[in-house]
Amino acid sequence: MEFTIRAANVDDCKDIERMIMELAECEKAIDEVKITKRDLEQDGFSKNPFFHGIIVEVPERHKTKEGHTKVGYALYFFSYSSFKGRAVFMEDLYVMPEFRGKGIGKALMSKVAQLGLAAGCQQLNFTVLDWNKPSLDFYFSQGCTDITAEKGYHYMCCKGEALEHLAQP
Amino acid sequence: MEFTIRAANVDDCKDIERMIMELAECEKAIDEVKITKRDLEQDGFSKNPFFHGIIVEVPERHKTKEGHTKVGYALYFFSYSSFKGRAVFMEDLYVMPEFRGKGIGKALMSKVAQLGLAAGCQQLNFTVLDWNKPSLDFYFSQGCTDITAEKGYHYMCCKGEALEHLAQP
Repeated sequence: MEFTIRAANVDDCKDIERMIMELAECEKAIDEVKITKRDLEQDGFSKNPFFHGIIVEVPERHKTKEGHTKVGYALYFFSYSSFKGRAVFMEDLYVMPEFRGKGIGKALMSKVAQLGLAAGCQQLNFTVLDWNKPSLDFYFSQGCTDITAEKGYHYMCCKGEALEHLAQP
Repeated sequence: MEFTIRAANVDDCKDIERMIMELAECEKAIDEVKITKRDLEQDGFSKNPFFHGIIVEVPERHKTKEGHTKVGYALYFFSYSSFKGRAVFMEDLYVMPEFRGKGIGKALMSKVAQLGLAAGCQQLNFTVLDWNKPSLDFYFSQGCTDITAEKGYHYMCCKGEALEHLAQP
């Protein structure tokens, strides 16, 4: 299927918000989503953005029955490993279910890898849910490794009252 | 013990490199360290830096037998959660062994939390090795949660030839 991949712009935030909600449904995490279109506009498209986005579009003739032509996205940001140096972190990789199996996810991830290498990054990192077997299989097929399983790195979070308390001098 | 905490500057890179090596020894990962002082200077202290640093200094009278007064550091960068929004990622938190148990690590992490909140971040994230019980106990005592254990998020990596191959259009 014909599709194009391009950098996201501020006008894509409505569709990114929609697809974040779809992704959250896939990940059974709909209650966790606090993000709004306005947050995405501010955080991704102002000076010193917190993330960058990539959008997949299909031609009008392939639009969904709801009329969507933006059918996938990736969000990424630059990060750092004190051992290895520059890195790129892929926060999301999403393709609408009816457009899967056509190489779109691979093309999106490839673009993140290209942009990372162009910026001098040594690695591409991301997280995946351990029960998401199709995604894990795809990532392994691309030569990715599971650092949590191999080395025991666990992903930790401090938020809400704990974060406020921690920040007290 | 008296100590001061301040933003790192380019002149701290020699000590940051030294302490990264010490941290790598603690984590049994000395062979993985590719970073140099020059990388740190370029990546942390040019326009659009890949990370930010915080340094702990003790007065001359408390210097180590090797003469070091910079005895701990944290590296962090801003990141993003598509569900929750702005986040700060603490890449490293390190205090030299002889200066532990004096509240220095807590003060460093508190500073990262403060800076994160000031930037509108909703969460502070980091990774920890599952066999590093003292660190895990400390983080849990601060109200942090283990997202890998609770939700099954695994940390993944694509690098080297796999990354080069993935980036091919």
